[in-house]
Amino acid sequence: MLRYALVFVCIRSIWGFGYHVNIVKPGPLYPPTKGEVWPKPQNERKEPIYYSFDPGHFKVKVQQETCDILTNAVERYIYIIKNKSGLHARDRKLRAHRRTDDVYKGKINQLMITLTSPCEEYPHFDMIESYNLSVADTSQLTSTSIWGVLRGLETFSQLFYLSNDRNELYINKTDIIDFPRYKHRGILLDTSRHYATTSTILKLLESISINKMNVFHWHIVDDQSFPYQSEKFPEISERGAYDSSMVYTKEDILMIIDFARNRGIRVIPEFDVPGHTASWGLAYPGVLTECYNQQQMVGLGPMDPTKNITYKLLADLFAEVQDLFPERYFHVGGDEVELNCWSSNPHLRDYMNKNKLKVSDLHSLFMRNVIPLLSNSSKVIVWQEVFDEKVPLSMDTLVQVWKNGWVTEMISVLKSGHSVLFSAAWYLDSLNQKWTDLYKQDPRGMVLDATDNSSLAEGVVGGEACMWGEMINVRSVMARVWPRACAVAERLWSSVEGSYYIVPAEAYHRIEEHTCRMIRRGIDSGPPSGPGFCVV
Amino acid sequence: MLRYALVFVCIRSIWGFGYHVNIVKPGPLYPPTKGEVWPKPQNERKEPIYYSFDPGHFKVKVQQETCDILTNAVERYIYIIKNKSGLHARDRKLRAHRRTDDVYKGKINQLMITLTSPCEEYPHFDMIESYNLSVADTSQLTSTSIWGVLRGLETFSQLFYLSNDRNELYINKTDIIDFPRYKHRGILLDTSRHYATTSTILKLLESISINKMNVFHWHIVDDQSFPYQSEKFPEISERGAYDSSMVYTKEDILMIIDFARNRGIRVIPEFDVPGHTASWGLAYPGVLTECYNQQQMVGLGPMDPTKNITYKLLADLFAEVQDLFPERYFHVGGDEVELNCWSSNPHLRDYMNKNKLKVSDLHSLFMRNVIPLLSNSSKVIVWQEVFDEKVPLSMDTLVQVWKNGWVTEMISVLKSGHSVLFSAAWYLDSLNQKWTDLYKQDPRGMVLDATDNSSLAEGVVGGEACMWGEMINVRSVMARVWPRACAVAERLWSSVEGSYYIVPAEAYHRIEEHTCRMIRRGIDSGPPSGPGFCVV
Repeated sequence: MLRYALVFVCIRSIWGFGYHVNIVKPGPLYPPTKGEVWPKPQNERKEPIYYSFDPGHFKVKVQQETCDILTNAVERYIYIIKNKSGLHARDRKLRAHRRTDDVYKGKINQLMITLTSPCEEYPHFDMIESYNLSVADTSQLTSTSIWGVLRGLETFSQLFYLSNDRNELYINKTDIIDFPRYKHRGILLDTSRHYATTSTILKLLESISINKMNVFHWHIVDDQSFPYQSEKFPEISERGAYDSSMVYTKEDILMIIDFARNRGIRVIPEFDVPGHTASWGLAYPGVLTECYNQQQMVGLGPMDPTKNITYKLLADLFAEVQDLFPERYFHVGGDEVELNCWSSNPHLRDYMNKNKLKVSDLHSLFMRNVIPLLSNSSKVIVWQEVFDEKVPLSMDTLVQVWKNGWVTEMISVLKSGHSVLFSAAWYLDSLNQKWTDLYKQDPRGMVLDATDNSSLAEGVVGGEACMWGEMINVRSVMARVWPRACAVAERLWSSVEGSYYIVPAEAYHRIEEHTCRMIRRGIDSGPPSGPGFCVV
Repeated sequence: MLRYALVFVCIRSIWGFGYHVNIVKPGPLYPPTKGEVWPKPQNERKEPIYYSFDPGHFKVKVQQETCDILTNAVERYIYIIKNKSGLHARDRKLRAHRRTDDVYKGKINQLMITLTSPCEEYPHFDMIESYNLSVADTSQLTSTSIWGVLRGLETFSQLFYLSNDRNELYINKTDIIDFPRYKHRGILLDTSRHYATTSTILKLLESISINKMNVFHWHIVDDQSFPYQSEKFPEISERGAYDSSMVYTKEDILMIIDFARNRGIRVIPEFDVPGHTASWGLAYPGVLTECYNQQQMVGLGPMDPTKNITYKLLADLFAEVQDLFPERYFHVGGDEVELNCWSSNPHLRDYMNKNKLKVSDLHSLFMRNVIPLLSNSSKVIVWQEVFDEKVPLSMDTLVQVWKNGWVTEMISVLKSGHSVLFSAAWYLDSLNQKWTDLYKQDPRGMVLDATDNSSLAEGVVGGEACMWGEMINVRSVMARVWPRACAVAERLWSSVEGSYYIVPAEAYHRIEEHTCRMIRRGIDSGPPSGPGFCVV
């Protein structure tokens, strides 16, 4: 038996005894809001005046610039508003609106979208996502960027709410000026420890867009399996994938990128080197280091940093990957290199002796050789070890901080002039972490608290919630990510009111509505905080 | 970044330095077994001789007794073997078996089922579940009980495994004598904190039967919602259910009971009283106690033990429920009663003063009044508080132990002559608990360790894995329950080899196969231990 002590009423009885009586109320722990947006817009003014939605009556018009992304988005959001807001077909017989209440202002007629600059082809690190939205009988959504229009359409769809009898959709008169606080707001998914089907990845992208995140960090390969199907090196996935059915073909990847592009989501591939590469060794054992126990080879370790074939393979593979992915950022990993294996290998020991290198210098050497293999226009993301081991990195390299002691690490990275991606407190593997625990972390806030230097704190450009694949599969992943990653999404988009380590009371109610919204849109989210329900 | 340190190879190098090198191997952490049964049979002899399965060639024959349960089960298991063992339609072009290996013994022809006693109508506490299974070209399954036949069919289906090229199903020559260690092996599902659809409950029943468990403990109502739709008191769910769509009608319940009966699963309803009843109060506030703060009523608490209307309502409702559920055991709850509310109520204070009662006596009074409301043939299950508060209980009452300090509690219950149901270490809410943690708990073993009294330990008649509903919904529940509850299922069915707190190495591999088997049979299980895959 288990009870959530919901409401504590402290009683001091008339007889002078002290009691605590837990009054448990029936119904949901946190009744959901109606038509509130997640993540919370930067500036929002809502009036107690509302309109109703009549599918036959409502039009979207687009003026100035347009493109396929915009056309697709308009079609998608009209569908979502009509079909994914909880109106049931059986309920949708619209009654004549003979309301007499003052605050009902009739049907919403139209959304006028004004895009003032030509569309960009792909989302990118510096893309603009701000938008203005004014909801009235004739509503206005304006942005200088296609990406801002996408964010505004998401907001618009979230403002609708069901009438109490569920027969109608309402929307309040609302004015919103909105923009993200951090540029890079992502979800990492590891598809090596367990394979995720392409359809699961598409669902994940849809859920990312509902939360106004803009990065899918695809940790595509690792020690356990290599599901990336290379055209140049098909034998790596032939031998390194878990199963011939568990690969990502070129067509799969292009579909994923296009689906993401239509939602303003960047797809950043990670090919983690030199560690986490055991699966490469099934086809190319020669690129890995032989680890020794005395004079006996005991197994394969990280890539061998002294062999030309290693760099040749990486150069060719990276070129192929970069042809496929439009994204300029490329994540080369660089974490958790098993230096003891390098130390145990006689050939590498000779090499270190001859060149007067420590074993950590081999890591540095490796990364210094690998990074130039990327195309000229590339920008690089690395895990924090690469910075820690003093690998020379160009100033536009992003350092992803993932370990304990993250405040010190962030400050050290920022002081060196590099930008930080924060993930350390946002590992979704940690089952103990509730959404509220994730919510209470703000990387800029932490840097500011420690240094009182706001321009230093600005160097944190974003963060990612990380969904490592060891303990999830396609059946469990969505409820493991959502709604917990919603906390990260709001932290990275919205302004912080007061202290970042306090979760506003209203957020408990708003995330209930948002979770139900995700479920209605086909995302298999778990519940956020406790007892409740969602009518789909 | 996160790595599972899979294999530690301790290296002492020739230069005299000590290293640990983590060699991470590609592929699954624990490669699955082939054709191994979960939970492990009591006695199993497998020979290195195998047969292949040809759907057109294989027949099941039934001799001596039969009934609808048996006919349905044969049809179901033939379907499962043909369609849910991983053979894909495209692969099922059976080739002529021109094998020359000595250990291949041709096609399996037939399963002869011999049931030596007439079928019982419903599964019950004392049902027999033992069976003998001998697999050869002509296989034999015999039992004195329909329930044993069901368990044996489950085992038979689990012995099949795919050939390496996945084109064929094989089964080894095997002899099994099997029976459960504990009589009561259950899953509790709470459908009040979040509503579970009937189809989710049917899925759960299917998964319970795959794990040879035999009880669905249906914690159907609680504080937050009342989804049981009563014919006598329809207003309770009209007001107390989360939503008009979130109820269990009589037809739903009969379907659930019939589905369970066909799988040898008892459906034990729990109507938890006098606490955990806030949702009853929306329609019948009068049966609940008014809690006071000084002279002010501050809310409603447990049922009022002094009012006749309380007992009248319960008598009529329980009679209706007992007409519906064939199960003789009825769970009346009795946990976590908010005694402070009773203490705060002026009327109850008067009553206690007049009758010289302590507040805990009110709990005892209540339970003493409620238990006789059940039909004559009923047997009762209570949460441990009812025992702790010295309510007189008939000797056949089962006391369900759920709190910390469980060894002491079990011993105390057993010494009083009552039987124990164990759940304390098997709460699936605790996300920290891995399947291995659940596996390491054996209630009889713990009692035996503490008392060295094996006949006392025998008084533990079983246990339940408890899935409380606060933090799960229909989207997340299956992966929350499975595969962790598999550990409980095996602990309760199989014999303990050596120490119960050591998980056998082979179990890590066997649970991988079993998890994939559940997934193939439509159960959305998560992964058990780490990296791996399942080809469905």
